[in-house]
Amino acid sequence: MINIAIDAMGGDFGEKPIIQGVVEALNQKPFHAILVGNSKLLQSQIPKHLEQYIKYEEADEVFLMNENATDVLKRKETTIYKAIELVKTGKAQAVVSAGHSGASMSLATLKLGRLKNVLRPAIATLMPNISGKTLLLDVGANADCKSENLFQFAVMGETYAKEVMKITKPRLALLSNGEEDCKGNELTKETHRLMKKLTNFVGNAEGRDIFNGNIDVLICDGFSGNIILKSCEGVAGAIFQILKDEIKQSLLSKIGAILLKPCFYRLKKHIDWQEYGGAPLLGVKGCVIISHGKSDSRAIKNAIFQAINFSQSQINEVIENELEKFNT
Amino acid sequence: MINIAIDAMGGDFGEKPIIQGVVEALNQKPFHAILVGNSKLLQSQIPKHLEQYIKYEEADEVFLMNENATDVLKRKETTIYKAIELVKTGKAQAVVSAGHSGASMSLATLKLGRLKNVLRPAIATLMPNISGKTLLLDVGANADCKSENLFQFAVMGETYAKEVMKITKPRLALLSNGEEDCKGNELTKETHRLMKKLTNFVGNAEGRDIFNGNIDVLICDGFSGNIILKSCEGVAGAIFQILKDEIKQSLLSKIGAILLKPCFYRLKKHIDWQEYGGAPLLGVKGCVIISHGKSDSRAIKNAIFQAINFSQSQINEVIENELEKFNT
Repeated sequence: MINIAIDAMGGDFGEKPIIQGVVEALNQKPFHAILVGNSKLLQSQIPKHLEQYIKYEEADEVFLMNENATDVLKRKETTIYKAIELVKTGKAQAVVSAGHSGASMSLATLKLGRLKNVLRPAIATLMPNISGKTLLLDVGANADCKSENLFQFAVMGETYAKEVMKITKPRLALLSNGEEDCKGNELTKETHRLMKKLTNFVGNAEGRDIFNGNIDVLICDGFSGNIILKSCEGVAGAIFQILKDEIKQSLLSKIGAILLKPCFYRLKKHIDWQEYGGAPLLGVKGCVIISHGKSDSRAIKNAIFQAINFSQSQINEVIENELEKFNT
Repeated sequence: MINIAIDAMGGDFGEKPIIQGVVEALNQKPFHAILVGNSKLLQSQIPKHLEQYIKYEEADEVFLMNENATDVLKRKETTIYKAIELVKTGKAQAVVSAGHSGASMSLATLKLGRLKNVLRPAIATLMPNISGKTLLLDVGANADCKSENLFQFAVMGETYAKEVMKITKPRLALLSNGEEDCKGNELTKETHRLMKKLTNFVGNAEGRDIFNGNIDVLICDGFSGNIILKSCEGVAGAIFQILKDEIKQSLLSKIGAILLKPCFYRLKKHIDWQEYGGAPLLGVKGCVIISHGKSDSRAIKNAIFQAINFSQSQINEVIENELEKFNT
């Protein structure tokens, strides 16, 4: 059975939603969780019947969100450091952390190391679209990219879609400011030429294609990826806020809103990132799932399922082999 | 009274919504419209009582959306070419066009010329936020930018906010992948240092800040700007699509939706770009308002009002003077 190291104290809301997520996941699938944190505190929150699936790794410190990611290498007593160590020493096959994402990435890259031929790891994330989900990468690991980096992200993203998401022929696209081949900035034009080597490449895609279900994997630099994530979050938030304010204006609309409650609930669930688990860090040796700092138990449960699917796949070997092909 | 050259045939839906927009605008504010196109066709659509405000400029060709912007300089019989000519020769003070935006931009830059000290013009657009609107630039004129370009966009955007939007102290921000000064890619880090010279600069902002009402003007390169526009359009479209599909599922929710119709209508109006007019091209001699190809009469009317406000302001002189200050 797979061992998953869980950074039990790194999230914004302390250990409670993390432990609850582990419990929910264990109620659905068998695995071993190694909870990294203050074992006394954690132990008291685990139901008796699940104790057999839980181990503990003592760690007294938490790497805080406002700390500088580069300092994490010196913070050997932190939960995230010890969780990554468990993968390095082979005691665990995967890490799930809702802690400082930059720290998780630095530790994973420097302690676990990059896969063969990988120049830079990338953070991938799943975005909801009208008919399913779109994998977007990079969403923050690399603010400045070269075309070779984006090409490798494409290979890694395509492999994730095939091996973990089980899409046989993922439609792979490059984010640009127009669908035509000639559109883009210098970086995307150069990347477009490289990506033509990939058989599943369907060409450039625009921001709107993330949501219309036309593509499965969208490649961009980490700066653009971050901007997309934050802007979309902003639009969705603004739409709901404006609608809420409008509904308050009359009794009829309040009644209408009550009748629509199940619809709003399902819509919210459909577009809620918590449903989609965490963001896999692609390109490092091992499996590292980076969860949102504000993850609730559902998000943690889904991140754990992602870690299980990732670890049971051949993704890392396939990435190395695929990149090898293009290295010659 | 101001003369506005109207590219009467350049939009996706032919001359009808354009003429209708001119009529609606004339019913609210006095100005002279010079309609550029097939005068016989246009004349028949103008109500008698407005005829005194209308002149015609004959042009038989339309520069099509699928043509290459660089070819427009040779297409001297097109509506957009002749409309820009009217400004160049002083017969009009402003142009409104829903035609090929790249062509409008090329013509404006090459025929009218850049303002003194301006390295590159930028397209600015207004985005709705929960309490008003945010000016975003550049949204497409420049896919690759240097920090000096972004700095100039900041000066131009700030000036537009002051002179045309009448915001005394516009909160000016730089789009980045984090609010902290140290966040960003190489370009934004360098730009951040330059923008510190501007007293209204409030620092870096994230994608979500476009919508939460925290800022008035957001600066980015044209690639990022385009991606934001398209992604946000995509999210909003997906949300309404999913909600529509959900509502269809039950009679109760259909009733709820009927009760909420006025709310949905006001929400749609609030976030509808047609309410915000066109996108001013900043940094060229004269006033050029670029409208969406799919503009309805409301969008054209609002673009005309924008052109009037722009032309009645001192924006171009102020931009030249402001840039001069930083040139020394």
